[in-house]
Amino acid sequence: MKRIADLLFEARMLKEIPRSGFHFLGVGRESVAEHVYSTTFIAFVMMQLHPEIDGRTLLSLCLVHDLPEARIGDLNSVHKAYVTADEGRAVADLVQGLAFGGRIRELIAEYNAGISPEARLARDADQLALILELKDLDDIGHHPPQSWLPHVLGRLQTETGKALAAAIMSTRRDAWWWQAALSREKPA
Amino acid sequence: MKRIADLLFEARMLKEIPRSGFHFLGVGRESVAEHVYSTTFIAFVMMQLHPEIDGRTLLSLCLVHDLPEARIGDLNSVHKAYVTADEGRAVADLVQGLAFGGRIRELIAEYNAGISPEARLARDADQLALILELKDLDDIGHHPPQSWLPHVLGRLQTETGKALAAAIMSTRRDAWWWQAALSREKPA
Amino acid sequence: MKRIADLLFEARMLKEIPRSGFHFLGVGRESVAEHVYSTTFIAFVMMQLHPEIDGRTLLSLCLVHDLPEARIGDLNSVHKAYVTADEGRAVADLVQGLAFGGRIRELIAEYNAGISPEARLARDADQLALILELKDLDDIGHHPPQSWLPHVLGRLQTETGKALAAAIMSTRRDAWWWQAALSREKPA
Amino acid sequence: MKRIADLLFEARMLKEIPRSGFHFLGVGRESVAEHVYSTTFIAFVMMQLHPEIDGRTLLSLCLVHDLPEARIGDLNSVHKAYVTADEGRAVADLVQGLAFGGRIRELIAEYNAGISPEARLARDADQLALILELKDLDDIGHHPPQSWLPHVLGRLQTETGKALAAAIMSTRRDAWWWQAALSREKPA
Amino acid sequence: MKRIADLLFEARMLKEIPRSGFHFLGVGRESVAEHVYSTTFIAFVMMQLHPEIDGRTLLSLCLVHDLPEARIGDLNSVHKAYVTADEGRAVADLVQGLAFGGRIRELIAEYNAGISPEARLARDADQLALILELKDLDDIGHHPPQSWLPHVLGRLQTETGKALAAAIMSTRRDAWWWQAALSREKPA
Amino acid sequence: MKRIADLLFEARMLKEIPRSGFHFLGVGRESVAEHVYSTTFIAFVMMQLHPEIDGRTLLSLCLVHDLPEARIGDLNSVHKAYVTADEGRAVADLVQGLAFGGRIRELIAEYNAGISPEARLARDADQLALILELKDLDDIGHHPPQSWLPHVLGRLQTETGKALAAAIMSTRRDAWWWQAALSREKPA
Repeated sequence: MKRIADLLFEARMLKEIPRSGFHFLGVGRESVAEHVYSTTFIAFVMMQLHPEIDGRTLLSLCLVHDLPEARIGDLNSVHKAYVTADEGRAVADLVQGLAFGGRIRELIAEYNAGISPEARLARDADQLALILELKDLDDIGHHPPQSWLPHVLGRLQTETGKALAAAIMSTRRDAWWWQAALSREKPA
Repeated sequence: MKRIADLLFEARMLKEIPRSGFHFLGVGRESVAEHVYSTTFIAFVMMQLHPEIDGRTLLSLCLVHDLPEARIGDLNSVHKAYVTADEGRAVADLVQGLAFGGRIRELIAEYNAGISPEARLARDADQLALILELKDLDDIGHHPPQSWLPHVLGRLQTETGKALAAAIMSTRRDAWWWQAALSREKPA
Repeated sequence: MKRIADLLFEARMLKEIPRSGFHFLGVGRESVAEHVYSTTFIAFVMMQLHPEIDGRTLLSLCLVHDLPEARIGDLNSVHKAYVTADEGRAVADLVQGLAFGGRIRELIAEYNAGISPEARLARDADQLALILELKDLDDIGHHPPQSWLPHVLGRLQTETGKALAAAIMSTRRDAWWWQAALSREKPA
Repeated sequence: MKRIADLLFEARMLKEIPRSGFHFLGVGRESVAEHVYSTTFIAFVMMQLHPEIDGRTLLSLCLVHDLPEARIGDLNSVHKAYVTADEGRAVADLVQGLAFGGRIRELIAEYNAGISPEARLARDADQLALILELKDLDDIGHHPPQSWLPHVLGRLQTETGKALAAAIMSTRRDAWWWQAALSREKPA
Repeated sequence: MKRIADLLFEARMLKEIPRSGFHFLGVGRESVAEHVYSTTFIAFVMMQLHPEIDGRTLLSLCLVHDLPEARIGDLNSVHKAYVTADEGRAVADLVQGLAFGGRIRELIAEYNAGISPEARLARDADQLALILELKDLDDIGHHPPQSWLPHVLGRLQTETGKALAAAIMSTRRDAWWWQAALSREKPA
Repeated sequence: MKRIADLLFEARMLKEIPRSGFHFLGVGRESVAEHVYSTTFIAFVMMQLHPEIDGRTLLSLCLVHDLPEARIGDLNSVHKAYVTADEGRAVADLVQGLAFGGRIRELIAEYNAGISPEARLARDADQLALILELKDLDDIGHHPPQSWLPHVLGRLQTETGKALAAAIMSTRRDAWWWQAALSREKPA
């Protein structure tokens, strides 16, 4: 149990780490934990659209995909040109002494391989979580998302991912509450 | 797809909402999205300890359990003495027009009922996420967690939840990296 | 005196609570305490324009109008479609044991009724405080205020409120210091 | 009306300025606007205890007492040993062209003179707002308030101010909600 | 040594003080310490372009130029119309008892005089640090930098300062990494 | 000049990056830019104590020592067990096309080698900047600095570094202004 408590404090670290991509974007901010939440929630939606896939695995892939960042930090695409992370060693230290450590290692390996249907969806969910932020910041009037969006959209691999991205890109950030709030404010 | 994009922006709102309990605690802060991340991750751990439960459902329960807060706000135990939230109506508006809206409604209802083994674990995960924060702040030297912890610990319902809480309470927040960092700094 | 100290700590809580409307707006931020400051200051200005009204009451109405939010949280117009707050009970608990508790209860009731000339001005001051924020954010270049402003302007009830709003809307956020700073920088 | 809009934007500036004393304290933070809110609310309480004083004036004194900080910045007691502010000129520029500018000038002068009963109470409210913060931070476990409190307490001039300070110092920051929340959590 | 430790804590204070100009700008933020970093780094660049100047002095001028703000606060151009800072006394108290206090005093005097080639460059570096922020915020889409930039650019005194400003103004904030990241993302 | 503007925007990035060590400490925060400011200022003090060393080089070493973090991120001692940064390549890309790029490369190499007297002092300044933060947080009452300080103190290499650390450790964070403020408040 002691090692499980360690794991929980390690997973908690993701709340302290800001996503470094936003430092380059120049606007917006989220913690890695918030990003994992978004990614996992998007995967939950994908799971409803894909009854054939293993939902337990899909959600698990998303939940653990950034866990190594507790020991490695949040490396964005600029960093990755210069930095090599021994993620294997980070995962080994993370799971050492954990009864179910092997399962975490498998999930992270499956996510990184990106071959299984679940991993392909999880990886698109990861990109969609960023697309959602960029669209939100674009609606608010910030300029940088306009240059970023084509590149992030280009990373999507699955039809479902692309369809969700198209839906996000054509929806106002506040459409979900705006119309209803308006009708309440000015009843016919 | 349009309504799915709405759902994603609605779920994104949880990143903007701070957990109001910390305003009363006087120290610490987390967004509702960060709390959902912690809760879901704790449930992932519980899932490894309980091969008999439905992991897909357990993770889903945690992921959606605070979704109504996008429309309702984050009500803590002080607020709840004065505020009645029509969560049913919030969920109805949330899922209206969504093909899989019924599934979200079922999950929120199952979480609120708190009867199924998955719901009981999910509810304990929700409390454990707060216990983890309180222990972290207590280790740092802040006083309020000492008065809060007995009450939050008292809300736990499952044996697994209690065992995890005991493990958290007896583990230093930085034990997961401290010993290793020390040994690297001063090699024998 | 003990209960007065409680009241002061309760009123202090408004400094910890962010105005939730800004979570929906997507930009800007203020605490409820800052909002009460703005509202009360605007009322101070109204008081100068209306020698016939009871200034002591007007300022008091503004000062206490969001006091119940310490126990209830900051509910915006989206929240209010789903949440019913028993403000009466919150106020009862707030004033219980306070020698001048009855006066606070009367003021909150008068504000909520919105009938007296002072309450009508106070309610417009509350909206003007938001209009001031929206105009400020609009001048900076953020888009959401453009959709919000017509609706908030439409809530104003008094001629004075409307005249002040028109003045705010036609004034640059930095006009009060810009011209003077310019003339100092480049003396003729 | 144009000059009134300028005044509102100028008063709004106090929301952007952090109280510089907290930089020296090392913990805590509030905007000048939040401090004015606290000061004015404390004065509202004093007004209930002193039916003989002019409440309209007392509240007005508090509301405008830090208005010159929009042009001057927030000078704390360390700064004041080195900086001389021409508050008269700041107020002159602030009120220039305002129909009720003379009233604002009078109020600021009355506050600074500190002779009228209302000004004496307002000045104590200003100190009590800081005492409330220090007590709050002390309860949380931060050390610096212990050295500061004797000095700030020593600045109080009125019996009412001293009595309120004594009440604050003997009251836990969370007493106003703690007992009730406890009784709800564990009904007999 | 005791007085040197005092000096280090005093210099550390600049990390707590936000640059007040950004309160007037309405967007962006930096601490005085961050500003000193930028100023000194820009001077390091100037030093490479000017082998004839005394680099040690140039960097030292920049490092200490805002040191008096620890005792005085950060006064911007609006404040300076109303506030007179006895910087001499602040420096006297700062260096009192320091073996090398005379050197700090000389450097601050040289910076303020703005006559030596090093001081002229240092003063331009101070303005360039602000121009860099304004250009960054302008690229992001915020409006206020457009009105500020002509005035800040107009304060530059040296040819090197003007050339650097021209280069900053014609360079996108993200040009340094954008092209390379693009080429990595889409290899030919 | 275009490449110099790129360099300035790259150096500016350090203002956006929080020092990741504080995520592990659990309290406090500084940007890398603030850390570079502190390091360089401490080196300025060392320079006064060591007239024999090359001050221009010492200050330059400190100014550029974390420049590669713009491309690599802020790697703390936990990260470094898992991550290998190709700092050479980051520096190559940083200085490519810069007339004085060779000088920056030399300085970073000299800092990393840590052999020259200037590099040894610069490296101690880097640690002292952290010690200053830890002592500050310790004085405020936070617990983690007590476990960290022995290890950070143990990294110091020079007699000057050790003497400065001893002075910091025996000096209250507010001693530089406290006594004077007290004497002003209560004149004899």
